[in-house]
Amino acid sequence: MGLVVQKYGGSSVADAEGIKRVAKRIVEAKKNGNQVVVVVSAMGDTTDELIDLAEQVSPMPAGREFDMLLTAGERISMALLAMAIKNLGHEAQSFTGSQAGVITDSVHNKARIIDVTPGRIRESLDKGNIAIVAGFQGVSQDKKDITTLGRGGSDTTAVALAAALDAEVCEIYTDVDGVFTADPRVVKKAKKIDWISFEDMLELAASGSKVLLHRCVEYARRYNIPIHVRSSFSGLQGTWVSSEPIGDQKVEQAIISGVAHDTSEAKITVVGVPDKPGEAAAIFRTIADAEINIDMVVQNVSAASTGLTDISFTLPKTEGRKAIDALEKNRPGIGFDSLRYDDQIGKISLVGAGMKTNPGVTASFFEALSNAGVNIELISTSEIRISVVTRADDVPEAVRAVHTAFGLDSDTDEAVVYGGTGR
Amino acid sequence: MGLVVQKYGGSSVADAEGIKRVAKRIVEAKKNGNQVVVVVSAMGDTTDELIDLAEQVSPMPAGREFDMLLTAGERISMALLAMAIKNLGHEAQSFTGSQAGVITDSVHNKARIIDVTPGRIRESLDKGNIAIVAGFQGVSQDKKDITTLGRGGSDTTAVALAAALDAEVCEIYTDVDGVFTADPRVVKKAKKIDWISFEDMLELAASGSKVLLHRCVEYARRYNIPIHVRSSFSGLQGTWVSSEPIGDQKVEQAIISGVAHDTSEAKITVVGVPDKPGEAAAIFRTIADAEINIDMVVQNVSAASTGLTDISFTLPKTEGRKAIDALEKNRPGIGFDSLRYDDQIGKISLVGAGMKTNPGVTASFFEALSNAGVNIELISTSEIRISVVTRADDVPEAVRAVHTAFGLDSDTDEAVVYGGTGR
Repeated sequence: MGLVVQKYGGSSVADAEGIKRVAKRIVEAKKNGNQVVVVVSAMGDTTDELIDLAEQVSPMPAGREFDMLLTAGERISMALLAMAIKNLGHEAQSFTGSQAGVITDSVHNKARIIDVTPGRIRESLDKGNIAIVAGFQGVSQDKKDITTLGRGGSDTTAVALAAALDAEVCEIYTDVDGVFTADPRVVKKAKKIDWISFEDMLELAASGSKVLLHRCVEYARRYNIPIHVRSSFSGLQGTWVSSEPIGDQKVEQAIISGVAHDTSEAKITVVGVPDKPGEAAAIFRTIADAEINIDMVVQNVSAASTGLTDISFTLPKTEGRKAIDALEKNRPGIGFDSLRYDDQIGKISLVGAGMKTNPGVTASFFEALSNAGVNIELISTSEIRISVVTRADDVPEAVRAVHTAFGLDSDTDEAVVYGGTGR
Repeated sequence: MGLVVQKYGGSSVADAEGIKRVAKRIVEAKKNGNQVVVVVSAMGDTTDELIDLAEQVSPMPAGREFDMLLTAGERISMALLAMAIKNLGHEAQSFTGSQAGVITDSVHNKARIIDVTPGRIRESLDKGNIAIVAGFQGVSQDKKDITTLGRGGSDTTAVALAAALDAEVCEIYTDVDGVFTADPRVVKKAKKIDWISFEDMLELAASGSKVLLHRCVEYARRYNIPIHVRSSFSGLQGTWVSSEPIGDQKVEQAIISGVAHDTSEAKITVVGVPDKPGEAAAIFRTIADAEINIDMVVQNVSAASTGLTDISFTLPKTEGRKAIDALEKNRPGIGFDSLRYDDQIGKISLVGAGMKTNPGVTASFFEALSNAGVNIELISTSEIRISVVTRADDVPEAVRAVHTAFGLDSDTDEAVVYGGTGR
C-alpha cells in the first residue's frame, strides 16, 4: 500500500460542487489502496477577500495578525472537504498546519518550513483515515504563533509533508492539465510535457512559468519527491517532475523543455557610473540592503572618452519604487549621473538540459526572434537556459516564434484551461 | 489599574466600519488605564454562511470538522480587530481559544469549559498589549481538538476569562442598550433595567429573554463576576448584572424585574394515562433517555370514573418530533391512549425576587391576563417567577398587559434596537 499526498488549489474547491467533486477523487485514491494525505488551499477568492478586508481596517496589514487572518481560509476549506468525504462513507480528519506538525521560522507572511513532525497525521492514517491538511500555514518554532508560507505556500506544504511521510508521489491538482511547453494562453499549440527534470522545472519556474513555484520544486528536488502536476477537472495523466523519468514515460529526452515568459519585471539603468573597481558592488550592496532580489544584470562597455559606463538590472516591478529610493539616497556614495526606470519590458526564456550539448541552440533562438522582428535589449544565460529582455508588447509574438522554431508546436490545440488562475 | 473583559457580538463587528468603531472603543478603555481583554464573535452572518456551506456538502454536518469550520469566523474577526487597534497606535495580539487556554470537554458543537489557563493572555497584558480572544471556541482537554461552545458561546468565553483573570467586570457589548423590562420589539414602553441580580437574570434567561444566555449568567454567578450589558453603538450605561448593586445604582430594588416571553416551545399532552404510581416516571424516563430537556409539567386531576389522567409538558419545538417518536415507541411500556402535539403555544413569565414577600403578585398577574382576555392553559411557579402558557397569538397583548399592570411602563419609548439580532 502506497502513501500519496494530493494538493488541491483554490480553483478546484471554489464552491460546494467543487468540494464534492474533489472529495470523490480523494475517495477513489483511497479505494485504490493508498493511504491519502490531502493538502488544500482556501476556497476560490477567499484569501483575496480577506486581504481586502484587512486593507479596509488597516492601510499596512502585516505580521502575526495578518497570518492569523489569512489562515482562516484553509480551515474553512479543509473542514468542508473532510465533511464531504465523510458523507461518501469514508473517515477523514482535518488538521491545521500546527496540528500537522508544520514547523516554520518566525518570519510572518513568508515563513520557511524548518521541520515537519507529522505524528498526528501518521496516527490518523494508521487508523484508516484520510488526512486533510490546511495548506499555506505552519506554526513558529519559538513563539508557537501561526505563520503563513507566502504565495504558492500550499504546494510547498504538500511537498514538505510528502517528504516527511516518505510518500511515493506528491500530486499537485490544478486547473490545467500539467506543465506546458509554453503558456497555453499565449501559445495555442503548446504541448503538455509528460516528464520534466527538477532542474529544467526550476529554470522554468524562475523564468516565469506559474504552474509550480520555485521553492516547491527546490524542496522536492532536495528530498527527491516526484511531483505529478495534473488537472482536478479531468482524469488525464499530467506532468511528472522528478530526477529521472518514471515508468513508461518517453525515454527520449527533448532538447528543449519549454519557453517561459515573464512580464512582471522592470528594468533600472544606472547611467554614468565611473568605470572603476567597486562601483558595481556599491550599487548592488545598496539594492541588497533594501532586501530586493534582482534578476538579470548587464554592464555596458565603457566609453573610452568619458571613463563612464551604464549598469542595467531587472527586478520585480513591485520593488521598483523601493530600489529607486534606495539608489537616490546613496547617490553620493555610489556616484552616477541619473537613473532610468522602465517597466514596459518582458523576458523570454528557453529552457532545456539539451542545450548543453547542442551548440546551435543559442543561434537558433536569436534567429527566431530576429525573424519575428523582435529587438533584444538584454541577454542572460545559464547552462540550461537562455533569457532575453524585449519590449513587453513583443512578448506574445516572440514566445510563439521561438516555440515554433524549436519544433515544440503540437499538431492540435490541446491545451485546455478549466478554471481561474488556480493558485 | 483594573482589568476589564469586553465582549463584542457579531452585529457590532459586521463590517470594516464596525470593526474600526469597536477598535476605537477598546482603545478608549485602554487609555482609561485598564488592562483590556476583548472577546469577539464572528462578523455578522459569517457563522450562518459557514453552516449553509456545510449543509451543501453534507446533509448532517456535525462533530469535530464542523467545529473546525465554524471557528474560522472568529479567527477572521479577531485578526481584523487586532489590526484595526494597531492602526490606532496601540499594541494588540489575537489569540485562538486554544492559545487563550480555554480548555473544554470533548462534546463537539456544544462543549463545556472545564478550565481556563490564560498564561499567554496574562503575559501579553503584562507587556502592555490589548489581548483579543476568539469567542465561542476552545480546545478539548484529552484530544487537543478544536471545540465550539454552542449558541451564545462567546458570552461564556468572556465570563470564563473574566473569572480566570480576576477581572473587575465583564462588559457584554450588543446591539441594544441593555436588559429591558420586556422585549422592546413587543413592548414599546419597555424600560432599561439599571441593575438586576444574578438570580432574576437567570430566571429571565430561562424564560425567553435573549440578551444573555442562561449558561453565561450561571458562570458569572458562580465566580461572582459582575456583567455590564451595554450597546456598542452608544456611550450609555447599560444593565449591571451582579450579586449586589454596584456604586450609585438605585438602592431601591424593584419588586418585579421584568416580563419575559417565549414562543419557541411546544406542548405535548399524554392522554389517558392510568393514575397509578410510576406512570409519570415512565413517561419522563423515556423523554430523558432521548436527551430532551423539558420545561413545564402539569398533571390533571384524575377523573374518578375512569382512573385515567392526562399529563402535559412543554419542550423546545425543535425536539417535538423526537419526543413523539420516543413516546410512541414506548407506548406498550408506559400505557396511554393517545398523544396530542400543539406548537401554537406561548409562555409569559413574570420575574422578580420581590414576589417572595409580596403575596399579591400572583393575583395581580392573573387579573391582568384576564382583563386582556387571555386564557391560561398551564401554570408553573418558582420562588421568584410565575409562568403561564397561553395561545401563541395572545403573547404580545399579554406581555403588554402584564408590563403595564406592574407599573413597568416607561414614560417614553426609550428602547432603541440598533442592528441585527446581536448574537
